[in-house]
Amino acid sequence: MGTPAGAVAAGTALLTDHYELTMVEAALRSGAAHRRSVFEVFGRRLPHGRRYGVVAGIGRLLDAIEAFRFDDATLRYLADRKVVDRTTLDWLADYRFGGDVYGYPEGECWFPGSPIVVVEGTFAEAVLLETLVLSVLNHDCAVAAAASRMTSAAAGRPCIEMGSRRTHEQAAVAAARAAYVAGFASTSNLRAGEAYGIPTLGTSAHAFTLLHDNEREAFEAQIAALGKNTTLLVDTYDVTSAVATAVELAGPELGAVRLDSGDLLLLAHRVRRQLDELGADRTKIVVTSDLDEYAIAALRAAPVDAYGVGTQLVTGSGHPTASLVYKLVARAATSDADAPLESVAKRSPGKPSHGGRKTALRAYDADGVAETEVLRTGGRGEVGPELRELLVPLIIGGEVVGREPLEKSRERHLRSRAELPLSATQLSRGEPVLATVYE
Amino acid sequence: MGTPAGAVAAGTALLTDHYELTMVEAALRSGAAHRRSVFEVFGRRLPHGRRYGVVAGIGRLLDAIEAFRFDDATLRYLADRKVVDRTTLDWLADYRFGGDVYGYPEGECWFPGSPIVVVEGTFAEAVLLETLVLSVLNHDCAVAAAASRMTSAAAGRPCIEMGSRRTHEQAAVAAARAAYVAGFASTSNLRAGEAYGIPTLGTSAHAFTLLHDNEREAFEAQIAALGKNTTLLVDTYDVTSAVATAVELAGPELGAVRLDSGDLLLLAHRVRRQLDELGADRTKIVVTSDLDEYAIAALRAAPVDAYGVGTQLVTGSGHPTASLVYKLVARAATSDADAPLESVAKRSPGKPSHGGRKTALRAYDADGVAETEVLRTGGRGEVGPELRELLVPLIIGGEVVGREPLEKSRERHLRSRAELPLSATQLSRGEPVLATVYE
Repeated sequence: MGTPAGAVAAGTALLTDHYELTMVEAALRSGAAHRRSVFEVFGRRLPHGRRYGVVAGIGRLLDAIEAFRFDDATLRYLADRKVVDRTTLDWLADYRFGGDVYGYPEGECWFPGSPIVVVEGTFAEAVLLETLVLSVLNHDCAVAAAASRMTSAAAGRPCIEMGSRRTHEQAAVAAARAAYVAGFASTSNLRAGEAYGIPTLGTSAHAFTLLHDNEREAFEAQIAALGKNTTLLVDTYDVTSAVATAVELAGPELGAVRLDSGDLLLLAHRVRRQLDELGADRTKIVVTSDLDEYAIAALRAAPVDAYGVGTQLVTGSGHPTASLVYKLVARAATSDADAPLESVAKRSPGKPSHGGRKTALRAYDADGVAETEVLRTGGRGEVGPELRELLVPLIIGGEVVGREPLEKSRERHLRSRAELPLSATQLSRGEPVLATVYE
Repeated sequence: MGTPAGAVAAGTALLTDHYELTMVEAALRSGAAHRRSVFEVFGRRLPHGRRYGVVAGIGRLLDAIEAFRFDDATLRYLADRKVVDRTTLDWLADYRFGGDVYGYPEGECWFPGSPIVVVEGTFAEAVLLETLVLSVLNHDCAVAAAASRMTSAAAGRPCIEMGSRRTHEQAAVAAARAAYVAGFASTSNLRAGEAYGIPTLGTSAHAFTLLHDNEREAFEAQIAALGKNTTLLVDTYDVTSAVATAVELAGPELGAVRLDSGDLLLLAHRVRRQLDELGADRTKIVVTSDLDEYAIAALRAAPVDAYGVGTQLVTGSGHPTASLVYKLVARAATSDADAPLESVAKRSPGKPSHGGRKTALRAYDADGVAETEVLRTGGRGEVGPELRELLVPLIIGGEVVGREPLEKSRERHLRSRAELPLSATQLSRGEPVLATVYE
């Protein structure tokens, strides 16, 4: 499938901060607007205790940048509210990002300082994208990081994304996509199915059981409509009698039962035993009650076949934003297209700043285990078999070149995570598993 | 202004969970789909330690429900993926919510169990809206609750919403709107300005200073473009020399200086003294560095004129979702339109369930201070001067009747918050300031 251009990205030009436009106005006035500039997107640190970050949202970002155009209605709004002057409005009317974007491809792991995305162009064309780039990446990377910990804790059992109701209705679609990149098997969100080809799943809620005169009638109705292979929700009244009724009605072909409340560890064992005794030994058990990566890990010993995850996934399991920033790291001293780039950085006590355009490399030991994140300023330098280049071209001269099918991002994430030191998959708090080295 | 229909709500029918549609299919099969049903949106509890909740997103929800239609492309997707059968597809093709929605109007405070929104219709037409209703309200109420604590802590000084870059690009627009309902003065988000008429603000970032050869040139450029009344960012290099340069260039008409890093309490005092000594005693000080309600309160003693708030606002200051649920509380036992409603509720150990359609009232003491949240089942009962009715009609027979200008929601929030016991505005953790009483 991949990411159909414009599917969720129609009209992105106002999804930005007022000051991006006033900076363009002031820079057009001073003439500095046309200086070649390099912006980097990076995180100064991982959320407290996390071992690695996950890049997600690149495909969405490429769509959003392509759709970053100022149409007549938008320009009228900006003119009416006097956000910027006429010269700037004319410049915006012709705006189309014409520079280059490099980035870590989707699914790749990242560490403090990793230049996840690098935007090169004139100051004006590149600064304008700041807010949009950060919105897309801060959200999607936060969800993917939580998702990766969950799929890792699930140790091969499928995770189902079910968090739409706990987050903004459009963020929900992006969250389903980010979770899929980080190994989730499916989603409940239908737009995510339509827009990105992600498998969708779902059967029924407690309301469906309560609607009917009794549980038996509800189960009969569901089986009649969706077949015996459906998943019946068994905790509306009494789990044991619900499971008995479910197997009585569907027989051993019953697809699954879902537990959405109570002591899941205990219930899963009890229900498994009951299902087996009733001959429904192929009927699966799905659990879905406020799960996070810790609850998933705690259920490893339980006979659970799939995890449905909601709130904690879409809210990044305690870290709803990836805290990525978009910083000017180099710019030319004149508007001449050939003028050499000069490193720049804010003076920030306590915040290490590393100006200059960088090459990003992952260094491996002899066994192929990742060891360090190497960020080189001053050219690409030597790249041997134990150093993997991380940045790939995403947009060149304004043309998107970095689209890929979502399946490829999924595979990349599995591969990238598997290369990390084993401690990466520990859920306990710790340091990033790779140290970042500036060369 | 209010909320222009469809501004951000185009095509909402797939912003839902797969199981809402399969439930409709199974209920159409059993015939129970047409039973009159009442769903309630409520929170079982407030986030840990919070004193009150804030209703936000009602205007967005009305737009989203109006736009909840299945067009041909959507139906084709559902058919191709075999999400539901042909009978259900035909039913969806004609779908248009034709029931009634009542709710707490936007800006009102809420408490555990408050029926924030009540949806009445056939089971099928009402269950279909579950995910969308919860997505809108869980997001917007979470942001508004955090915003209200911030504006309360700011004690009259203006708060500026600047969090777009830290959340999903569309969630950012809704967050700006929710913050405005809860008393924020303005936003940096241009779409929120366009869609909802919220005042937008913004001047420049560190990149703008770094772009120029030195700070003086950057300030000159900004003043030339935006006038002396602009806000200059003074912490790129050295604050003291930046303030001196700023006043030298703009004189006493300099609008404001912005501090975005460092010890804001100390810096604000120092900068205020310096500005006053330079004769710029009307120049304001804006602070914007990872603020939350606690940091805002801590700066009460500092000479700060406005707070710019980002990350903590859009992520609900530790509680990014309001944890509202959508529960069937009553339904008819037959599909007859006149059949009486019967209360229903899941058996939930540890989760109090209160079936039945409710009247929601706020009870006041003789001084007009709110005392309790009274939820009555079994009819409206007596409503005297010390009992205020909370539910208002939002949609009647499928027609939206509850739209209102955003300014009205803002005023309502101020009024509703002011009626609460004084402890409502304490930032320390505590119990909800109103107890919920079921009658």
